[in-house]
Amino acid sequence: MVPRYSRPEMAKIWEPETRFRIWFEIEAHATDALAELGVVPKEAAAAIWEKGAFEVERIDEIERETKHDVIAFLTNVAEHVGPEARFMHQGMTSSDVLDTCLAVQLARASDILIADLDALLEVIKRRALEHKLTPTIGRSHGIHAEPVTFGLKLAQAYAEFARNRERLIAARADVATCAISGAVGTFANIDPRVEAHVAEKLGLAVEPVSTQVIPRDRHAMFFATLGVIASSIERLATEIRHLQRTEVLEAEEYFSPGQKGSSAMPHKRNPVLTENLTGLARMVRGYVTPALENVALWHERDISHSSVERYIGPDATITLDFALARLTGVIDKLVVYPARMEKNLDRMGGLVHSQRVLLALTQAGVSREDAYAQVQRNAMKVWESDGALSLLDLLKADTEVTAALSPEEIESRFDLDYHFKHVDTIFTRVFG
Amino acid sequence: MVPRYSRPEMAKIWEPETRFRIWFEIEAHATDALAELGVVPKEAAAAIWEKGAFEVERIDEIERETKHDVIAFLTNVAEHVGPEARFMHQGMTSSDVLDTCLAVQLARASDILIADLDALLEVIKRRALEHKLTPTIGRSHGIHAEPVTFGLKLAQAYAEFARNRERLIAARADVATCAISGAVGTFANIDPRVEAHVAEKLGLAVEPVSTQVIPRDRHAMFFATLGVIASSIERLATEIRHLQRTEVLEAEEYFSPGQKGSSAMPHKRNPVLTENLTGLARMVRGYVTPALENVALWHERDISHSSVERYIGPDATITLDFALARLTGVIDKLVVYPARMEKNLDRMGGLVHSQRVLLALTQAGVSREDAYAQVQRNAMKVWESDGALSLLDLLKADTEVTAALSPEEIESRFDLDYHFKHVDTIFTRVFG
Amino acid sequence: MVPRYSRPEMAKIWEPETRFRIWFEIEAHATDALAELGVVPKEAAAAIWEKGAFEVERIDEIERETKHDVIAFLTNVAEHVGPEARFMHQGMTSSDVLDTCLAVQLARASDILIADLDALLEVIKRRALEHKLTPTIGRSHGIHAEPVTFGLKLAQAYAEFARNRERLIAARADVATCAISGAVGTFANIDPRVEAHVAEKLGLAVEPVSTQVIPRDRHAMFFATLGVIASSIERLATEIRHLQRTEVLEAEEYFSPGQKGSSAMPHKRNPVLTENLTGLARMVRGYVTPALENVALWHERDISHSSVERYIGPDATITLDFALARLTGVIDKLVVYPARMEKNLDRMGGLVHSQRVLLALTQAGVSREDAYAQVQRNAMKVWESDGALSLLDLLKADTEVTAALSPEEIESRFDLDYHFKHVDTIFTRVFG
Amino acid sequence: MVPRYSRPEMAKIWEPETRFRIWFEIEAHATDALAELGVVPKEAAAAIWEKGAFEVERIDEIERETKHDVIAFLTNVAEHVGPEARFMHQGMTSSDVLDTCLAVQLARASDILIADLDALLEVIKRRALEHKLTPTIGRSHGIHAEPVTFGLKLAQAYAEFARNRERLIAARADVATCAISGAVGTFANIDPRVEAHVAEKLGLAVEPVSTQVIPRDRHAMFFATLGVIASSIERLATEIRHLQRTEVLEAEEYFSPGQKGSSAMPHKRNPVLTENLTGLARMVRGYVTPALENVALWHERDISHSSVERYIGPDATITLDFALARLTGVIDKLVVYPARMEKNLDRMGGLVHSQRVLLALTQAGVSREDAYAQVQRNAMKVWESDGALSLLDLLKADTEVTAALSPEEIESRFDLDYHFKHVDTIFTRVFG
Repeated sequence: MVPRYSRPEMAKIWEPETRFRIWFEIEAHATDALAELGVVPKEAAAAIWEKGAFEVERIDEIERETKHDVIAFLTNVAEHVGPEARFMHQGMTSSDVLDTCLAVQLARASDILIADLDALLEVIKRRALEHKLTPTIGRSHGIHAEPVTFGLKLAQAYAEFARNRERLIAARADVATCAISGAVGTFANIDPRVEAHVAEKLGLAVEPVSTQVIPRDRHAMFFATLGVIASSIERLATEIRHLQRTEVLEAEEYFSPGQKGSSAMPHKRNPVLTENLTGLARMVRGYVTPALENVALWHERDISHSSVERYIGPDATITLDFALARLTGVIDKLVVYPARMEKNLDRMGGLVHSQRVLLALTQAGVSREDAYAQVQRNAMKVWESDGALSLLDLLKADTEVTAALSPEEIESRFDLDYHFKHVDTIFTRVFG
Repeated sequence: MVPRYSRPEMAKIWEPETRFRIWFEIEAHATDALAELGVVPKEAAAAIWEKGAFEVERIDEIERETKHDVIAFLTNVAEHVGPEARFMHQGMTSSDVLDTCLAVQLARASDILIADLDALLEVIKRRALEHKLTPTIGRSHGIHAEPVTFGLKLAQAYAEFARNRERLIAARADVATCAISGAVGTFANIDPRVEAHVAEKLGLAVEPVSTQVIPRDRHAMFFATLGVIASSIERLATEIRHLQRTEVLEAEEYFSPGQKGSSAMPHKRNPVLTENLTGLARMVRGYVTPALENVALWHERDISHSSVERYIGPDATITLDFALARLTGVIDKLVVYPARMEKNLDRMGGLVHSQRVLLALTQAGVSREDAYAQVQRNAMKVWESDGALSLLDLLKADTEVTAALSPEEIESRFDLDYHFKHVDTIFTRVFG
Repeated sequence: MVPRYSRPEMAKIWEPETRFRIWFEIEAHATDALAELGVVPKEAAAAIWEKGAFEVERIDEIERETKHDVIAFLTNVAEHVGPEARFMHQGMTSSDVLDTCLAVQLARASDILIADLDALLEVIKRRALEHKLTPTIGRSHGIHAEPVTFGLKLAQAYAEFARNRERLIAARADVATCAISGAVGTFANIDPRVEAHVAEKLGLAVEPVSTQVIPRDRHAMFFATLGVIASSIERLATEIRHLQRTEVLEAEEYFSPGQKGSSAMPHKRNPVLTENLTGLARMVRGYVTPALENVALWHERDISHSSVERYIGPDATITLDFALARLTGVIDKLVVYPARMEKNLDRMGGLVHSQRVLLALTQAGVSREDAYAQVQRNAMKVWESDGALSLLDLLKADTEVTAALSPEEIESRFDLDYHFKHVDTIFTRVFG
Repeated sequence: MVPRYSRPEMAKIWEPETRFRIWFEIEAHATDALAELGVVPKEAAAAIWEKGAFEVERIDEIERETKHDVIAFLTNVAEHVGPEARFMHQGMTSSDVLDTCLAVQLARASDILIADLDALLEVIKRRALEHKLTPTIGRSHGIHAEPVTFGLKLAQAYAEFARNRERLIAARADVATCAISGAVGTFANIDPRVEAHVAEKLGLAVEPVSTQVIPRDRHAMFFATLGVIASSIERLATEIRHLQRTEVLEAEEYFSPGQKGSSAMPHKRNPVLTENLTGLARMVRGYVTPALENVALWHERDISHSSVERYIGPDATITLDFALARLTGVIDKLVVYPARMEKNLDRMGGLVHSQRVLLALTQAGVSREDAYAQVQRNAMKVWESDGALSLLDLLKADTEVTAALSPEEIESRFDLDYHFKHVDTIFTRVFG
């Protein structure tokens, strides 16, 4: 965990205090259920809730001796509860506590991430509506293609993050399961009703079949989903980095008055937030493969997954939370330059309209091959003039073209609004 | 694509013939819709269906000149259709064809993979029911823990692959979209109703907002899901590799009469199929990161994703199809040795029952710490004797233990069926 | 292997014919050594060289029955050699043949890749010298920084690929080892001198300790090195993609007369080769992790690495060979636009000289903080004017600035050659 | 960074205090060189060394305002040095400091890792010599193959880690370079001799051509090398995990008296250290791809690599340091059970000798095919008897076998020492 890329609410989920509190609740709820089933005295269950407490440092101290974290925790709690503590953890195994705790942590982390996505979606939507009809050049291969609107770019981002929201909800469901099934998952020494009770209290589903541990395909799917979301962050971040390039400069990250861009070059305003997001996306993606490698545990379980999860549990969720919040801020305050967008749009001497002319020619009876050749030869002249020549003028002077289309017919193909007639259709699809 | 790890039905999806046939259908359906909308003559649409044809070699030949595959295809089709071919592809862009085709291919591939999973699930279920109560030792950390049944192991695998089936259905939905939206996704030169028509005819959903291309987060999620499934394959394969170890030998891959295990050691029967599956799982996982890296295309699109998909489209689906089928065969014919399972279960001198004694002691009023110490000191002797000593005998001779539990009470804890009383519960959860 | 991204010489290394020929040579050389040691008759060794032959189809046929490739091969060769064939493979194990063969294949593949790098380096050097003093703007964060030369960009690429060449030579040495050590690497049934003989004949080093197989850390290092080289390819490809952007257009991939950029937009010339290289780099990188996962084989060996290598052996080397050759072609024919570079360099109204003024101010006794503020406030005005205002004019009109520097002193900082005075130093470092 | 998997010496390298101290030294050495060249007053250089100081908290405070770490650092140092501080950082850019600092950190981290490898190699060598002739069964595919010695297993590990040591030395050289080349690497405002001076003082090589930043292919190679080393750790860890399995139990991690294996099963002694190492290896491998993705920075640099390196710089080196030390401890104290090795070796009824009989038969004139069949039919009976039958007895009773070999000739093939006659050869190759 890198503190600079961490926000407190998410970080708190992964602090020892939180983890042990969840452990305590699992143990206490389980003892309640055991008491209800008559396996342990009801007084014991009550005593645990009443007197139960723990201290992180004391647990660490005991663990240094026993080299076993759950035993250390139980020992420390027993120091507070007294002899009735022996009824805790009856028939349970450490993983019942550890894995159910991880499920609670990942579910809570998911809730924050879903809220992050909601905030991001709201901001994207607002900016998309604001720029619904702000014309800008669409680019394929980094080359000017045909006009789009800046709102359309954001509508695409909205749809993508809305998909990611759905995926995250599915991933949350995948990991939010409770297992209290004993040493090898057979419930040999604990009634399945204990599991059902704890699951209900903690808002988890019951794990249908566990083998001491909750199966790691669930977690693999979860972290893979975070990797996809991170990749979408990279996509939008990359878009902004491109738009802020000196030669393009159609949009810019907000640059606060006190901020310094470069120790050497005072004029520079760099897209450092989105570059940073690009790097953070690499990290969240990097956690996917370790999570996939965690699936093939040996037999009923081995503990190789544990160290991996100590890293990626916090690192992937904290980093993604930070990245989503940062991206939300970037989009929220993004400085958009419609005038520059228009200027860029015009700079190619009308080349963006070439396809419309091509179509008009074919519809006027010219073969596709001939039409292509006629448009291309004029387009190439404009291209090579770096925008100094005008495609419209050249076409009107090309006798083969004018044999098929009148000057007015050619001119009518150089109209920007023509491209935006279905923006409403798309916005309705995306925003309802 | 490695022919040896390829099955014909899946491989066929990725052959040029299939791809061009799908292209043809996209173009022909689109022309139908254009005709219906009055943009092109109905006769043209009819002519395309009637006279339309292509030859893979001719397309390759044209592409070598034009360096553009869709233009090469259209040129070849036009050679068959004649002048009315100029009404094809009106207002469309190459990606409309390419991406919609990929959607069809991935949807078909998904259907095969879902059928593969169904076949695997059926076989796992059959073997799980067969061995529902076949006792075997459960192992954590590769060390004997407590008894399970071989059916439980398979029930876990069933539940895992059933989850994978759900994930694959979701992933299929993610990629099965149609985009016919033109050069930058604005429908500037094509009516959105064309897209709706083609989508319906091909069994796809409409892509709400495309940008020349269908957004690659969809494909990233698809390939990530295949990576999770591959990891589950590795898990079950690893289980079998462990069970076939010389010292364990509780199950064995079927070894056909003509097969030779080793050119040097004629007695060897190696788990080569599951080792092979382990390697194949690494490959399918390896395709996840390139798919994630494909998401952040530049602006409305760049073509960097295309080469990646030429590899991973076929390689990931063909490999996973082969692996699922191979795993199904392995489980189907797996030779299971219940006698050896029982022998292994017994070899630890009753250590597997230690936890039950521990519980009995605490329930008889011994503190958890003391109970643990009493059981552990006897357990350690058994462990060090390599199974020569019996835990039951030692416990009955330990006066501290017998102070809390009678010999009969101790003996009653050495009962295998005790462990299996909830097998039905678990089977009901998993198989309904 | 994707035929479109494959070149014949490299592909040939991975064809069955080549593989079996290498097997044959390993077996024949080994038999020579065995004959020399008196273990088998000299006539047998001679007979193998004289009469030895194989047919790929016949081997496949036998393998379908025996399910063992080396046995199938030996059987087929025996069909040609006759009874003396029984002296082949004496004391050897299949992996002796397979792993040594893979070493030969990877060494040969390395030789091609090294030659590819040599060709690339030569082309980069030529273009670097050609543009040694072609001024262009250096960009950090995509934002104009200070002047560089186009030759310097290429000098950096040269140095990077020269490092990659060194790494590849080291990686080649890592994998080019021969193991003929028997079933578990003990030479129980074969004299180590056989290994030494075969190694020498095939130009390999002797593997100091093998365990039936050659250890896979060697191969992991090899494929990791290819992944680094691929990433360098991506870097240079990305540079060109950026330079070809419509708004930048300082360089362009060569666009052949017959080529078509877009089926819809005839004016477009897209950097499709470098975009393609970006995708190919993703693939070569994607093969690194499976190679790393191959290292931890079980005990003396398991065969999980084998299927992985059937993919990545050909795919990584063939793809990288193709990518290096394509990149060489791109750089060779790259169309460079010095005039456009100059135009872009000037477009920021002299902002690129801001740091020099900053330095001059501090050297004239202004505090760093004040100097920064003075330069930045003027720089910001230029920035916001989109290059309409001139930094030089503004600075000369800023009384705080002119209090420290005369107009002539300010002007002297607006000199391009100032930036290039150490280009020679750098070129000497890089090209010697 | 996970504190539990962290050792102080390595962690210290990555603390802010250390980083800022290195920054200070870079700036102070650079100012020395500038003074020597007459660019700044010698008194200023002296003042920086004399009065220069910084406080981590104060730097953080300033950075919160300026959002620029190097400026914050310089401002804080200036608070101590006074007006002469304005001569620091003359002509330099932030990356000159940051990248050269990272080079120092990675070089120091490499030194620790090399020392870790030395310690590991020493321990492996000691245990290898100790068990040079301890017989144990060699296993391929997890199946008994032929005898090896436990020392041979360790000799292989030694050779592998010795290779890793060489690789790490090369990787260290790759990243240990110094760049003080200014805003775009042209030395426009700083003399290359400053770079040479700082490089020499810090024990680094001069970066031949930098572009504001040191090229990231160097770092990619470094982290890829760590990934290979991690995979070798996984290999040895996996070997031990296998050896400690209940049914195998040929070796065991040292189990300290106070340690508890399981909260539920007191008899369990689990290979938790090597399982942990398996997980840690996954993490170090997981950092390779982000490092590879860092190579393709935009133009002269973007800052996307920075966040990645804030994670993987510390995480990869700290984790690998911890893992190497843990593995060294595991091997150092590994409890080896030669008696159990012998027992396992014998349990297959002599099957391990089958190949020798096969060879003897062919040498006695039996065709390879017939010999194979004769040995296999008897071997299969032994296999199916689970070691109850003896291969030697069966072969002596097989009249086809005895037609070629006398009972004495058969018996002579059942000799363990036969397999170890070349152990010396291998040990000499590995240990010299």
